[in-house]
Amino acid sequence: MQKSSFTTISSLGEFKLIEKLTKDIQLNHISTHKGIGDDAAVLKQSTQTEQLISSDMLVEGIHFDTTYTPLKHLGYKSMVVNISDLCAMNGTATHALVNIGVSNKYSVEHMQELYEGLKLACRNYNIDLIGGDTTSSPAGLVISISVLGSCDKQKITYRRGAKPNDILLVSGDLGGAYLGLQILEREKEVFNKNTTTQPVLDKYKYILSRQLKPEARVDVIKTFNELEIVPSSMIDISDGLSSDLKHICSQSKNGVKIFENKIPISKEAKIVSDEFKINPIICALHGGEDYELLFTVSQKDFNKIKNNKNFTPIGHITSGQDMELVTESENTINLTEEGWDSFIKQKRSI
Amino acid sequence: MQKSSFTTISSLGEFKLIEKLTKDIQLNHISTHKGIGDDAAVLKQSTQTEQLISSDMLVEGIHFDTTYTPLKHLGYKSMVVNISDLCAMNGTATHALVNIGVSNKYSVEHMQELYEGLKLACRNYNIDLIGGDTTSSPAGLVISISVLGSCDKQKITYRRGAKPNDILLVSGDLGGAYLGLQILEREKEVFNKNTTTQPVLDKYKYILSRQLKPEARVDVIKTFNELEIVPSSMIDISDGLSSDLKHICSQSKNGVKIFENKIPISKEAKIVSDEFKINPIICALHGGEDYELLFTVSQKDFNKIKNNKNFTPIGHITSGQDMELVTESENTINLTEEGWDSFIKQKRSI
Repeated sequence: MQKSSFTTISSLGEFKLIEKLTKDIQLNHISTHKGIGDDAAVLKQSTQTEQLISSDMLVEGIHFDTTYTPLKHLGYKSMVVNISDLCAMNGTATHALVNIGVSNKYSVEHMQELYEGLKLACRNYNIDLIGGDTTSSPAGLVISISVLGSCDKQKITYRRGAKPNDILLVSGDLGGAYLGLQILEREKEVFNKNTTTQPVLDKYKYILSRQLKPEARVDVIKTFNELEIVPSSMIDISDGLSSDLKHICSQSKNGVKIFENKIPISKEAKIVSDEFKINPIICALHGGEDYELLFTVSQKDFNKIKNNKNFTPIGHITSGQDMELVTESENTINLTEEGWDSFIKQKRSI
Repeated sequence: MQKSSFTTISSLGEFKLIEKLTKDIQLNHISTHKGIGDDAAVLKQSTQTEQLISSDMLVEGIHFDTTYTPLKHLGYKSMVVNISDLCAMNGTATHALVNIGVSNKYSVEHMQELYEGLKLACRNYNIDLIGGDTTSSPAGLVISISVLGSCDKQKITYRRGAKPNDILLVSGDLGGAYLGLQILEREKEVFNKNTTTQPVLDKYKYILSRQLKPEARVDVIKTFNELEIVPSSMIDISDGLSSDLKHICSQSKNGVKIFENKIPISKEAKIVSDEFKINPIICALHGGEDYELLFTVSQKDFNKIKNNKNFTPIGHITSGQDMELVTESENTINLTEEGWDSFIKQKRSI
């Protein structure tokens, strides 16, 4: 992030910065009666649906590293992770508010790049950007987004509804986002040692896109609607399969049995995990940030979905409280107990 | 903020911290179908009203200084400034989401203190705390709050509706919050020089409360309803009378004339400003953070309100674009031009 020839934020001032960043924002939803520009946004309500609201904060040095994350990608991803939360409720995001705290190491042009990504995500997902706050920060960048949306009352899917014998499925593939991060961290280290080296990242394209430019699975919600499926429980995979599955089990007050050889991992993730000498199953279980949907369906609904290649059945809900993993060698280990630790030790080749 | 005998946040972990902070949250609104604990909150919508949403971010070192701001007060104020935004639309806040980024200089107990203040504000203002995010931060504390509420469609008050000859009024008194901050900054400096000194702050009680524990003027919105008044424009005073009035004028495409001797300043503010050798009018015009409501009403509505001691008429809207201040000596100066600078120089005794 070179600063020369860039405009300092302080030379522009808060109001003019906000104006510059938000002047070309288009509002597409007829429910948006007032967007940015007053003390609050104003939305028309509808009794046809229930409203969904979610909020997430991303902090520099914790959730992202701008030395290898392009600001446009960061803006895009910040919006997407919030949209993903509404997908996890079986809903559709429609409106967003963006609060940004920014230090003087960033220029006006940097903020414009970040906003380009935010606005691109809004266009791609049909979101009206209706408000927010832009303020100084003594150090680094903080992005806090609230997303609003809706869902038919009968279709809202909580984490708590999984029943014994329901089938557990996951969209897409897992572990890629974590491996993408490992590549970026490795290249950063190489670059820090020798700043003339240009990293060759072409062969990691898919894995890097999983980390840098994830998408929210709005297509999955559309498929559910088309197939008239309402999952009995759902969550998006932000912390890793193991951790997110635990939320479904504890809130549904049931257990689960999953099968190691069913967990979907892309061939690119397998190649990269081999390069890093990590078992890809560890990345899938513990990596996080894949933003795929993890959900359960009744046996009846499973028949409607079982041939759809977007989804992989990876296990089923059990009565009791155990979260069990059946390994490739057909051992059953407990995912939340010591068995899990020993499984990690056994699988981790490094 | 002593750390000994306090619990580190990392020893507790994110999920347990959130559980600890939010376990006793009560939900009072029947519209709240699901609060904290899933991927999103779920609200029932109503076609009787329009929905209002506002979002603000407070950053340590920019908006607050925890060396003299008790964390409970900080939590309270963070919520109040957002509620105040909905008052400024003539609406009522009902729900809030709180995102917090926190560094390891804060303990679990500190976060509990902060949450005590947030929850107290929720109780006092009848707000359901329905979601949010708690995350690490490499340095300091960031609080980002989104507040939702509602207003009858016919009563929503924008900044843009002020008409020539409308009367400009303000609730409460101005400048106190800024002077409170000056006292706190002065005492911090004294304390830094001599850490055995205990500041005597009793005589500054009112002024300090204006800075540390402001309230949102929900009572004013109630009065408007009772008197069947709908202001033609409104804003809350967060940046200072001059700056906030400018928003009303520019969005209403009109000018304004205000009178120096009408601007309400408390006797405590007058005493303290004398102590600091600042003209209190400067504090009122430029200080900010008073969270009073600045609004315009038609001549007809003014008759209903003119004897109400909660409000002070300070001027009127004019055609044209000028923001004029009639000084005590009956000179008319332009608030946004050079006249203003020379006015400041003339009034500032230090």
